[in-house]
Parts: sequence; C-alpha cells; structure tokens
Amino acid sequence: MVLLRFQSTCCGPGARRYPRAVPSRDALIDLLAGLAYAELSAFDRLTEDARLAPTLAGRVEMSAMAAIEMAHHQQLAARLQSMGVAPDVAMEPFVAALDTYHSLTAPSTWLESVVKAYVGDGMAADFYREVAAFVDEPTRELIHTVLADSGRAEFAVREVQAAVAAQPGVADRLALWARRLVGEAISQTQHVLADRDALMMLMIEGTGGLAGVGELINRVTSRHEERMKALGLDS
Amino acid sequence: MVLLRFQSTCCGPGARRYPRAVPSRDALIDLLAGLAYAELSAFDRLTEDARLAPTLAGRVEMSAMAAIEMAHHQQLAARLQSMGVAPDVAMEPFVAALDTYHSLTAPSTWLESVVKAYVGDGMAADFYREVAAFVDEPTRELIHTVLADSGRAEFAVREVQAAVAAQPGVADRLALWARRLVGEAISQTQHVLADRDALMMLMIEGTGGLAGVGELINRVTSRHEERMKALGLDS
Repeated sequence: MVLLRFQSTCCGPGARRYPRAVPSRDALIDLLAGLAYAELSAFDRLTEDARLAPTLAGRVEMSAMAAIEMAHHQQLAARLQSMGVAPDVAMEPFVAALDTYHSLTAPSTWLESVVKAYVGDGMAADFYREVAAFVDEPTRELIHTVLADSGRAEFAVREVQAAVAAQPGVADRLALWARRLVGEAISQTQHVLADRDALMMLMIEGTGGLAGVGELINRVTSRHEERMKALGLDS
Repeated sequence: MVLLRFQSTCCGPGARRYPRAVPSRDALIDLLAGLAYAELSAFDRLTEDARLAPTLAGRVEMSAMAAIEMAHHQQLAARLQSMGVAPDVAMEPFVAALDTYHSLTAPSTWLESVVKAYVGDGMAADFYREVAAFVDEPTRELIHTVLADSGRAEFAVREVQAAVAAQPGVADRLALWARRLVGEAISQTQHVLADRDALMMLMIEGTGGLAGVGELINRVTSRHEERMKALGLDS
C-alpha cells in the first residue's frame, strides 16, 4: 500500500484533518528527475521547433530559450547526484510519457511552436511549482529557479499578437491548438502519476486530500486561462 | 578588385615580400558572423544528433555540448552587436554553406555523430583559429575562447575506442565517414571563400600569399590526422 511509504509528522489531537506528511525520498527523487527530463526534452524540442522560425533572429531567440532549459536540466541532475542518485536512471520512468506528449504535440508551424513554448510549458511549470510547495525549502527553491519564465511570455505575446493582427483567422486555430496541448499534457500527467505512487501520494498528502487536488487543478487551470488571455486567444 | 579593400600597413624597402595588412572591417565581421552561424548550427545539429545516443547519459552529454555552442554563439553575436552590426543580417551569407554541409553529413548512427562532433568540428575550429591569427588581439581571444574543446576529445575517444574494441569492423566505416566529413567541409569552405572577398583576402594577406595558404592547409591537415590517430582510425 503506497501510503506506507510516507511517515506522518503529526498525529496528535490537534492534527489537521489531512495530516501533512514528510515527502518520501522516492517522491523527492521523482519530482527532481521528472522535471530534469522535462527540461532535457524541452531543450530538445525547442531546438527542433526553432527551425520553424520565419527569421534567423526568431530562431536564435528560441534556441537561446532551449539552451536555458539545458542549464536547468544540469542543475537538477547535479542535485540528484548530490543525493547519490544517477540522473539517467532516475529520469528513465519519465521518458515515455514526456516523449509521447511531445510526439503528439509536434508543432507544424512557427506560431504553434511559440504557443506550445508558452502555454504548454507554462502549464507544466505551474503544476511542478504546485507540487514543489510540499517539499523542503532548498528543493522548492531549486524548482522555482529552474522554472523561471526567462522572458518567454513577452516573446510569445509579441509573436502571436503580431500574427493575429495580420491574419485574424489565426486566433481560432491557435486556440484549438492550445486546447490540444492542454488535453495531451493532462493525459500524460495522469499516466505518470498512475505509475509513480510516491509522486501521487506527495500530491494527495500535500494538498490535504482529493478535494485539495481539485483546488490545485483549479489554480493551474486559472493560470492557464490568464496566459491564453495574454495571447488574445479563447481558452 | 578585392585587394583595394585592404590598407597595406607597410610598403617601404624593408617590407616583407607579402606585406601584412590590417584586416578590413568587412573581414572581421565575416569572420565573427561565419563563426557565430557555425556555432548556432552546431548547436542545432548536436541536439538533433544527441537523439541517436544509445543511452540517456550519452544524450545528456551531447546535449550539454550543444548548449555550450549556444553560449558561444551568444558571445559572438554580442561582439557583432557592439560593433553596430545586426548578427542575423551578418550571419545570412553563411547559412547556405553551413546548412549544406550539415545536410550532406547528417549522421545515421551515434558513432557517426560522435566522429562528426570531434573530427568535423575540430577541423573547422582549427581553420577558424588559423584565420584568427591575422586579426586584433581581443577578437583573436574571443575566437579562441569560443573554440575551446570542452572535453569533446575525451568523449569521442572513449565512445569510438569502446565501439571499435567491441566490433573492429566499425573502424573502417568510421574512417570512411571521417574522409567524407573532411571532403564536404573543404568543399563548403571553398564556396564561402569564393563569395566572401574580404575573408579570402584576410587569409591570403595574413598567410603572406598563396604559399602561406598552402602551409595553413598543411597545418590544419596535420592536426586532423592527430585526431584520427587519437580515435584509432586511419586518416
């Protein structure tokens, strides 16, 4: 039974209804390793998508974003190593889900790749930040550092608004594309959580139970809607 | 006549047979921009080739090399900007030749990509370093910095020697592959020089004439042979 992996920190009469648990080492490793592979694959895909850029300047801009993801990957891998964990072994359980997400959402145009880099990666980042709230301070800080936006919002807003201004029909197609990104991201996240008991329990225990998970999802969804609004797209 | 772009620095009776010239601004821009696009495309291709890695650890190692190339690209682009030059405009004349080189030498196996990263990029680096000898000290230093090997030699030697030990027939195929890389690199370099008068003149004036160009090519070739020897391959 997966619950046994957690050590409850409190159980006295004053305890909360859903007692907060100390995350297991397995959960911490999964969180860091899942994010490390997410950064590595984002690096990979942003580099590939950069080739769709209509200008050399746009290609450079997206390639630079990719290089930042690689630096983030390296920070996470170093943390895993300092915990005595081989990063490649720890990342392995996350390869299939993330590769599937990327292969099902391979952009066919520059604007699709821009929306993916902002909306898709933004939603994933929100999810990781939510889960990071349940872990120790140094790990949380590292996760917030590697998830820093690095100017991606302004970049996406600029590119999408210019395209929509030139050709209004683009907005509907991009809104549909964003919905597909969200659908695939949710589906792959569910696959991962179904396989990784420790991560799933970290989320359930951290949020204080299933109702808390629902609130977490609402927060992530509402930030997603803000991003869509910033782009001028219907969510 | 392209020679007119150069200002001879000396012309008195004590002058060398081929008087050394101050590189034109055009030549400096071409050198920095050609190298900037070489770094950007190396970033791109190393990332793509990293997917051929048989292990996640190998993929991470090659991706990290790619990210270093991007950092180098950014240093060169910053130098161009400080000279009042738009990097994307300055890089444009080099896009076709470098893209052609990469498309004609797309590796189909992990070992081919490792040999390309070491032998192909190594030869290009030697060539840039040779030409850098003819420019001002700060530019030369920048070029040497961005061409630093960053552990690529040990990486390639380790991967190739292990593969050859396991399957000796691999050595012949990789030696053939390396010859193809060199052939395409020379061919594309000639295309670039044929179109870029300032660069061509920098090389001719810098080496002291055609005989000097021959010696430059000999030096580059001999360093190429050392790399092949380090890999245990016939050159």
